Amino acid sequence: MRITFHFKNSPTDLWLKDLRAALPEADISEWHPGAEQADYAIVWQPPQQLLDEQGAQLKAIFNLGAGVDALLKLQWPNHLPLVRIDDGGMAVQMAEYVSHALIRHFRELDVYESQQRVAGEWKPHRTKLRSDFPVGVMGLGVLGERVARTVAQFDFPVNGWSRSPKQIDGVQCFHGEAQGFKNFLAATRVLVNLLPLTPDTANIINSETLSQLQPGAYVINVARGAHLVEEDLLAQIARGHVAGATLDVFRTEPLPPEHAFWKHPKITITPHSSANTMREESVAQIARKLMAFDQGEKVAGLVDMSRGY
Amino acid sequence: MRITFHFKNSPTDLWLKDLRAALPEADISEWHPGAEQADYAIVWQPPQQLLDEQGAQLKAIFNLGAGVDALLKLQWPNHLPLVRIDDGGMAVQMAEYVSHALIRHFRELDVYESQQRVAGEWKPHRTKLRSDFPVGVMGLGVLGERVARTVAQFDFPVNGWSRSPKQIDGVQCFHGEAQGFKNFLAATRVLVNLLPLTPDTANIINSETLSQLQPGAYVINVARGAHLVEEDLLAQIARGHVAGATLDVFRTEPLPPEHAFWKHPKITITPHSSANTMREESVAQIARKLMAFDQGEKVAGLVDMSRGY
Repeated sequence: MRITFHFKNSPTDLWLKDLRAALPEADISEWHPGAEQADYAIVWQPPQQLLDEQGAQLKAIFNLGAGVDALLKLQWPNHLPLVRIDDGGMAVQMAEYVSHALIRHFRELDVYESQQRVAGEWKPHRTKLRSDFPVGVMGLGVLGERVARTVAQFDFPVNGWSRSPKQIDGVQCFHGEAQGFKNFLAATRVLVNLLPLTPDTANIINSETLSQLQPGAYVINVARGAHLVEEDLLAQIARGHVAGATLDVFRTEPLPPEHAFWKHPKITITPHSSANTMREESVAQIARKLMAFDQGEKVAGLVDMSRGY
Repeated sequence: MRITFHFKNSPTDLWLKDLRAALPEADISEWHPGAEQADYAIVWQPPQQLLDEQGAQLKAIFNLGAGVDALLKLQWPNHLPLVRIDDGGMAVQMAEYVSHALIRHFRELDVYESQQRVAGEWKPHRTKLRSDFPVGVMGLGVLGERVARTVAQFDFPVNGWSRSPKQIDGVQCFHGEAQGFKNFLAATRVLVNLLPLTPDTANIINSETLSQLQPGAYVINVARGAHLVEEDLLAQIARGHVAGATLDVFRTEPLPPEHAFWKHPKITITPHSSANTMREESVAQIARKLMAFDQGEKVAGLVDMSRGY
């Protein structure tokens, strides 16, 4: 079996070494224009040319990430299956990042830090009730479910919202558009976004949805920048309905130097770092999926092209 | 049954109202010098005079906190049982506080924050391996066990250390002095302190113990200030063996304005706020314990005076 490999902007030697160790029967080499036709491709941000040259005869493409929105913008050969990673060590990182942002806001640890560093002030605050801070997680795939379960562990009321119905212990699950989404927003104060980016979910965090959240809302976006209408968030913070936000993703990345988020006192930003693909976990998972697919077995993470994830 | 109540420095009307609702058969009133003799006392930081006047004829004292070190410094009437709260809503707060400090350090979220606010710099960091950050929790009572379990949820290797042997799923438990403690320290990089303060545990975090931790150690102290030899921590940070610390408790509180911790770039401090007693949970728990004790049943949290917790 021949496999072509492409990983944008990363030294590829360690990836190739680990992939060859995990798939010893396969002949794996790095893709270059005009490379020999392969049976499978394992990719991260491949160029259109890879698809143009190899796509027609590939049996499947495996994506080393959970989000496939960028891939689906390419000209995609008809009927070429796309399999995405489920986790790759990212779920625990998402759970960490979201827990940190939630606890920091709820427990006012940012305020304590400025009491220390700026004011030099010893001033304990009254403890807030966690029942006043229901958390709502949008998107209940592998990452969203892990985040929802982790937040529930800290005894917050947790809501979840997904396209199709789900059941998760300790999480009140809502689903569907219209009423299901409305009810989810009305029950939520801290909104956590882990949705896939599709035409249906682009711009989903906007003035209308933000204003349906409970007063003093807080937004944590770890999915894609295009989910959030950035000026609507700024307006809702200025109005006082939204208390602040922690954002890892942006409509333009790197975030332009003149962007209002850099200096906004209520907005914390990180440079698309909430969860990195970890090589070991990813290689193990992709190797398992590829072998199963090659045996004709059903694999999790096969992307539904019409749905977009 | 008559109960006398004392809560230092807090408006007591809501406490009295909730206690009366939880113990409707009892006659509960606030203690004052010369108050009528009661059967039980429910207290937070009582004066010596309360013990002097009432102690001889009380059946037991119930403490609205988990730490009893301050109480045991009073002249204590022989044979007067002391029962402490197990949790009172504090365990989840401890789990939050420790998780936040651990994640903030491990994921370098403090560095990202200064990249945003100070440097205006978009710079993702390489992800560290959590296997390089084993966490060690000292003290495995109700609070310590909750903290250890929560940290294990984030897939860190977790060690626990206690006086007597314990078993906790997902936690490598060490016990006893000498070799057990040595092995625990050698296996630990992030040290979390939740010990009770007793003559045996005072000054337990000192140059000798800190230098036995793995290089790049981090200290999170949420127990008592007297557990930590503050100048030893500063010296180990200056040496580079300890990377930093998050501290909620201090030898003198409030922390004196001239203290080095206020301005130290590697030390984050909070004003003894990691976990506050929550009135509702505490009242429910104390009422349950008091009724059980009065029926002659065994209650958890009965303090062993010789052991000190």
